[in-house]
Amino acid sequence: MRPVSVVGIGSIPIQKENPLSLGEMGVMAGRQALEDAGVEMLDAVYASNMLGSELQNQKHIAAMIASGLGQVGVEAIQVDATSASGAAALRAAYLSVASGAVDFAMAVGVEKMGGTDSATPVLARGLDQETERGETMVSMNARVMQMYIDANRNRVPIEKLLEGFAHFAVNSHANGAKNESALLRKPITLEDAMASKTIHAPLRLADCSPICDGAAAVILASSEMAKSFTDLPVQLLASSCSTDRFSVASRKDPLSLSASRHSAEKAFRQSGLTPNAIDFFEIHDAFSIMAVLSLEACGFAERGSGWEAGINGSIYPTGNLPLSTFGGLKSRGHPVGATALYQACEIVRQLKGQAGANQIKASTGMMQSIGGAGTTILTHIFGL
Amino acid sequence: MRPVSVVGIGSIPIQKENPLSLGEMGVMAGRQALEDAGVEMLDAVYASNMLGSELQNQKHIAAMIASGLGQVGVEAIQVDATSASGAAALRAAYLSVASGAVDFAMAVGVEKMGGTDSATPVLARGLDQETERGETMVSMNARVMQMYIDANRNRVPIEKLLEGFAHFAVNSHANGAKNESALLRKPITLEDAMASKTIHAPLRLADCSPICDGAAAVILASSEMAKSFTDLPVQLLASSCSTDRFSVASRKDPLSLSASRHSAEKAFRQSGLTPNAIDFFEIHDAFSIMAVLSLEACGFAERGSGWEAGINGSIYPTGNLPLSTFGGLKSRGHPVGATALYQACEIVRQLKGQAGANQIKASTGMMQSIGGAGTTILTHIFGL
Repeated sequence: MRPVSVVGIGSIPIQKENPLSLGEMGVMAGRQALEDAGVEMLDAVYASNMLGSELQNQKHIAAMIASGLGQVGVEAIQVDATSASGAAALRAAYLSVASGAVDFAMAVGVEKMGGTDSATPVLARGLDQETERGETMVSMNARVMQMYIDANRNRVPIEKLLEGFAHFAVNSHANGAKNESALLRKPITLEDAMASKTIHAPLRLADCSPICDGAAAVILASSEMAKSFTDLPVQLLASSCSTDRFSVASRKDPLSLSASRHSAEKAFRQSGLTPNAIDFFEIHDAFSIMAVLSLEACGFAERGSGWEAGINGSIYPTGNLPLSTFGGLKSRGHPVGATALYQACEIVRQLKGQAGANQIKASTGMMQSIGGAGTTILTHIFGL
Repeated sequence: MRPVSVVGIGSIPIQKENPLSLGEMGVMAGRQALEDAGVEMLDAVYASNMLGSELQNQKHIAAMIASGLGQVGVEAIQVDATSASGAAALRAAYLSVASGAVDFAMAVGVEKMGGTDSATPVLARGLDQETERGETMVSMNARVMQMYIDANRNRVPIEKLLEGFAHFAVNSHANGAKNESALLRKPITLEDAMASKTIHAPLRLADCSPICDGAAAVILASSEMAKSFTDLPVQLLASSCSTDRFSVASRKDPLSLSASRHSAEKAFRQSGLTPNAIDFFEIHDAFSIMAVLSLEACGFAERGSGWEAGINGSIYPTGNLPLSTFGGLKSRGHPVGATALYQACEIVRQLKGQAGANQIKASTGMMQSIGGAGTTILTHIFGL
C-alpha cells in the first residue's frame, strides 16, 4: 500500500438546525475541502450519512454530493457504520488511495438531525432489532454505564466514579467554548456537570452528546502527490476497523470494548506507534461511558481506571493525553454521519498548527469512532 | 494493486417473501460462501442492503451479519449505492484485498422487500428529493423509455421498438425458467410480453423486474492466495464506478447513460479487454430501457440500436452476447441490495462450468449495476 496524506479539509459550523438542505450542507463542506486542497477534480467521493433516508427522505447521498460539487463521472459511494459512518467513509477513501486505484478521494459526511423527534428512534436501529428492540442508544449506554459502576463500586465510592465521568464533560465544554464551530460554547463546572439532570439513570445530561446538524470533509491523496498540494501534508498513518458481537448481551465482557481494543491494536501495529507516542486523542464521547471504556481499551488507562483520567487531569489540554480538543462529540456536537470527519479535520488543524484558541502541541493524533453500543469501531492515526 | 480472485460464493433462492429474518438470510448466504471457499476466518465483511432500516427497522447490517457468522473482531462496513449497493460492496471488498490491507473479504448483500407496500416509496428516495420529489423508480424509467421512443420513432415504427424491448423479457424469463433459484420460472412468449399490462406507459409489466427477498455473498482473496483455496479461481479483472448528474433532468443527454459508458470504459481499460472479448453480460435489467441503454453505453450496440439486440437474437444464450443468463433482475429477481452479488455468483458459476441448465460457453463475463435512474453505475469484469 502506498502512504496516504490529507491534502484538504472542510467543515461547516455545527448548528441545532441548519437552514440549508442535506445536499447543500454536504456540498458546502466538500467545496471548502476542494478549495483548501487546491484540487479541482476528484476521482472518488465516499459519503457518510446515517439518517437522511428517514429524516429527509433522501438516499444516494454520495452521488448527490458529488453531483452538487460538479464532480461528474466521479466514483461515488455511500458508506455506513451507523454513528461511526464518517470513519468508515474515511477508511474507504484511504483504501482507494492506498491501493493505487484512485489518486484523489474525498470522504464527506453530513447529517441533519435537529428540529425533529425522530432522530432517537432511528438511531436505535443501529442496535440489534432481534434481541434489543425497545432499547435506544441512551438506554443502552445507561445500561453499560451501570455495569461499569457495579463492576467498580466495591473499591471506589460511586460519587468518585461519577466525578470522574463528569470531568469528561467539563473538558469537552471548556474546549468547545473556544471553538467557533462548536454547538455548545458554554464552559461548565464540575458541579454543573454533576448536578445536571438525569436523562436515564445513571446517565445525566452532562454524559450525553447533543443532537445537531453538520457536515465535514477530508480529501486524501498519496503522500507522494500530496507534496505538490500542501506545504505541510498530514499523513494518515493508520486506518483500522473491528467489530464486536452485535447484541451487547451476547458479549462475554461488554466493558472490555473489544472492538476498540482490536481496532486500536491494528492501528498501532500499522503505524508502528505505541499508545505513549500518541499526543492527543479525538475520542468518541457520545456518552462519557464510551470515552472511559475507550481509554481503557486502547491502552491509555488500566481496566477500571479510565474514570481517573479526568480527575488526574490527563485528558485536559495540558495533560498527557488531551481529549476532544475542539469540544468533542459532547460540546462541538455529534451530527452522527459527519462526526468522524469533524474529528479528522480537527486533528489535521492541530497537527498543522491551525487550531487557533484550541491549539495544543502535537505531532501525532488519534481518533476513534464508535458505531452502535461499541459494535463497530474504527481507529485512525495521523502524524506529521 | 495485487490481482484479486473469487474463492467462494453463496446465494439463497429468491422468494416473494422469505420467512427468515434479514440477518438470518444474510448469514445463510455468507455461510454458503465460507463453506464454498473452505475459509474459516475473514478479515472483512462489506455488506449491502438498501431498505432494511425502513422495512425491518434494522441498520448496522454488516456488523449484524459478521456477528451472525461468528466473525468476531472482523472489519465490517455497510456500503450503499441504492440499487447498485451489492456492486459497491463487491468493489469495497475488491479494493481492500487489492490494496493488501486485507487477505479475505466477503461482500454480502441482503434485501427483504416482499409482503409490504412500502418498498416503492422507499426505493424512490434514491432519486433527487430536491427536484424529483413525487417520482418513483417506475415513473422515472417510464419517462426515460418515452424519451428513447421519441428519439427513435422517426426512423423505427414504435411497435418494432416495443418488440425489441419485449425480447429482453422473453430472454430473461427463458433463462430464469431453468434457474431453480429464480423467482419467476415461467417462460413467456413475445406475444405475452407485448400484451402484458401497462404499469406506467410506456412501461409494461414485462419491462419491470419484480419485488422480492434474497441474499448472496462472494469471498475475495488475492489471486496468489486463491490458488490454495480453489482449483479454478475466477479472477476479478476489473472493478469500476462512475456517476452522472444526480437529477435526470439536469443531464445533457439522459439517453447516453454516461455513468454506464464511463464505468465500462474504466473497466475495459483496467482489464485490457475490449467489448468484443466479453463472452456474456449480466446486465441491470431492472427495467428493459436500462438494459437497452446499457448495451449502447458499453459499446455493445450503436446509439439507438440497443433494442435490435433482442430481435437479432444476440442477447439469447446462443447469441454473441448472452444477457441475464440466470434470468437477470427481471426473472431471477431484484432484491435490490443483494442483486449485484447474485450477478457475481452467476458469473462465477458460468466461468467455472457450474451453471447447470443455464450453462453457456464463456471465459469472461461482465456485470453492470445501476443505482437510481442511471445515477451510480458500477462495472465488474471476471475471467478465468
